[in-house]
Amino acid sequence: MEGKTIYNFSAGPCVLPKEVLEQARDEMMNWHGSGVSVMEMSHRSKEFIEITEQAERDFRDLMGMPKSGFHVFFFQGGASMQFSAIPYNLLGGEKKHGNYLTTGAWSEAAIKEAKKISAPHEVWADSGSKFTTVPDADKWNIDKDAGYFHYCDNETIHGVEFPGASSFPFDVIPENMPLICDMSSNFCSRPIAWDKYGYVYAGAQKNVGPAGVCISVIREDLIGTNMRKDTPLLFDWKTFRDAPTKFHNTPACYPIYVCGLNLAHMKKQGGLAHYEDLAHRKSQLLYNLIDSSSDYFSSPVDPRYRSRMNIPFRIKKDDKLEAKFLKEAADAGFIELKGHRSVGGCRASIYNAMSMEGVEALVNFMKKFRDENH
Amino acid sequence: MEGKTIYNFSAGPCVLPKEVLEQARDEMMNWHGSGVSVMEMSHRSKEFIEITEQAERDFRDLMGMPKSGFHVFFFQGGASMQFSAIPYNLLGGEKKHGNYLTTGAWSEAAIKEAKKISAPHEVWADSGSKFTTVPDADKWNIDKDAGYFHYCDNETIHGVEFPGASSFPFDVIPENMPLICDMSSNFCSRPIAWDKYGYVYAGAQKNVGPAGVCISVIREDLIGTNMRKDTPLLFDWKTFRDAPTKFHNTPACYPIYVCGLNLAHMKKQGGLAHYEDLAHRKSQLLYNLIDSSSDYFSSPVDPRYRSRMNIPFRIKKDDKLEAKFLKEAADAGFIELKGHRSVGGCRASIYNAMSMEGVEALVNFMKKFRDENH
Repeated sequence: MEGKTIYNFSAGPCVLPKEVLEQARDEMMNWHGSGVSVMEMSHRSKEFIEITEQAERDFRDLMGMPKSGFHVFFFQGGASMQFSAIPYNLLGGEKKHGNYLTTGAWSEAAIKEAKKISAPHEVWADSGSKFTTVPDADKWNIDKDAGYFHYCDNETIHGVEFPGASSFPFDVIPENMPLICDMSSNFCSRPIAWDKYGYVYAGAQKNVGPAGVCISVIREDLIGTNMRKDTPLLFDWKTFRDAPTKFHNTPACYPIYVCGLNLAHMKKQGGLAHYEDLAHRKSQLLYNLIDSSSDYFSSPVDPRYRSRMNIPFRIKKDDKLEAKFLKEAADAGFIELKGHRSVGGCRASIYNAMSMEGVEALVNFMKKFRDENH
Repeated sequence: MEGKTIYNFSAGPCVLPKEVLEQARDEMMNWHGSGVSVMEMSHRSKEFIEITEQAERDFRDLMGMPKSGFHVFFFQGGASMQFSAIPYNLLGGEKKHGNYLTTGAWSEAAIKEAKKISAPHEVWADSGSKFTTVPDADKWNIDKDAGYFHYCDNETIHGVEFPGASSFPFDVIPENMPLICDMSSNFCSRPIAWDKYGYVYAGAQKNVGPAGVCISVIREDLIGTNMRKDTPLLFDWKTFRDAPTKFHNTPACYPIYVCGLNLAHMKKQGGLAHYEDLAHRKSQLLYNLIDSSSDYFSSPVDPRYRSRMNIPFRIKKDDKLEAKFLKEAADAGFIELKGHRSVGGCRASIYNAMSMEGVEALVNFMKKFRDENH
């Protein structure tokens, strides 16, 4: 395969910028003249503290975060660990359950974890849509006595995304109810209305960096105030906030370092404005092909909630034809286009590091395949 | 600093073999002709499955593991997460608490976690030794009705280690009581009597690889049989065992890959026999200097339980002199020799990737410092 261009449409871990990988390679044996690799640094060393502090500064800058009021963490365990951490940290006081809006596999996984130690309130029970849309906010059944409201901004598997950073119906969330959002798969692709959120978290292995890091942004007043006494150490936001450089135990140091390289890279490319525009153009190109060949390609998702990051599609709803497509695509260098095993079909994940050129090449390949396989 | 030899005595993350880092560097942009970096691979891709399966084979081979009866996991969250996972996985049936032998900061952290959901039985309460020894086994107060027996084989902070793989008093552990051991900081440095253990776990960031991975070896019959119903997802050994390639959610892929490179490297160097001999010779060299200059250097640890991996020492018990030593050592390229903040003094951690030459150079530097600073 040496020499062939590979376009990697993996849902995560996924394509990373070539410049970031090259820098990691070039610094591998000796970081900034320290004589050691980043992998060999104590997480308490001044060099590694410098790396994480720079990563946090670049993150805050890229994301347009307010100067105070929020703590940024580089946790282990993925977003999945936070599914557990959320009820432990927030339901130890008067509030005994949270609101959960379920719009796909990941928000479903979140409520499943909450059920282990609480009786979460389901804001909307999907009936028959198979997670292809989001109900209008006036149909949401919100429990005003719940301790928080949780949702997932972009469902990686089902390809359902809230359309714009400011389009979420913030006004239906009761005042003073912390709004919590799993943004794993559309993080860093558009601005976030920070004043609306209590807690935003995201597995890094989509738009930010390698797997092993969950970037967590927690509003100061939510840390330690209503935590259950039996909160396991790794879930305990307060213990981590109070630890030196917010690492109570050894974090996934090297993945944090690479996230830092990419955060700096994304700033240099033009920041969120650049990636928001790019995501719009890339996804439109693909949806336009799908819509203009609707007898051949189809998207199961309600057009109002189509994801810009993860685009599931079917080919004539024909498993055999899709298998042929996936094989020929992989042979041509378009890899990881298989839909998640729970939904089947195809899926193109087009994260920040996927170029416009890569999507154009995929669209051309899909057209060619369509014309050759009627 | 370019060009100067650095000897890294960090307690972890720590020095890794140069050959391993070079291989990671050389494969960074294109793993085995796949056209992608390991960091860009889906954890469900055939390439990454190949990487993890090879890592597990090399691990089992290196460690002389029995062919069946145990599952090997590459978990996130460090050994600290397993402090929580242990009581959740083992105390959901008839047994409601475990035995804990507390010989230092890490076994203390383990029992602290167990106390959140159970009433663990303390086998020995340290009274005044400040974790500088282990009581004789006939003084251990073991609860025969407890669900397991937990101990730490090598205390990274206090430098207390059980002297040999077969020297642990296995015969005092009641029959059928699972023996559980945190081997984080002496893992892969000597053989393990697998037939004696129910569960062995180790943070990788000492002898095995970069931080972000906890290698966990769990006996089949302990998985899922006595698990609490409220076990959080990330602690749930059964869910992970039953998941494709034992990853329920996205693991710390890149650190696992580098662990794999090092496991293969350690096999090539001569395996556990090589590292056991090397650890003995390296640690003896340092202890010999300490003992032969006992008016100057001192080790707080009972000689019967001195660690081969982490060697805490004092210099005339003089904070100022130690600060001078640490500064001059760092200037000369001997880095990370400061004792843990909870105990002070100095500490040399000499893991598998630290060469004999490195310890010789340190010993010569210590002699020179002694002769110049009376």
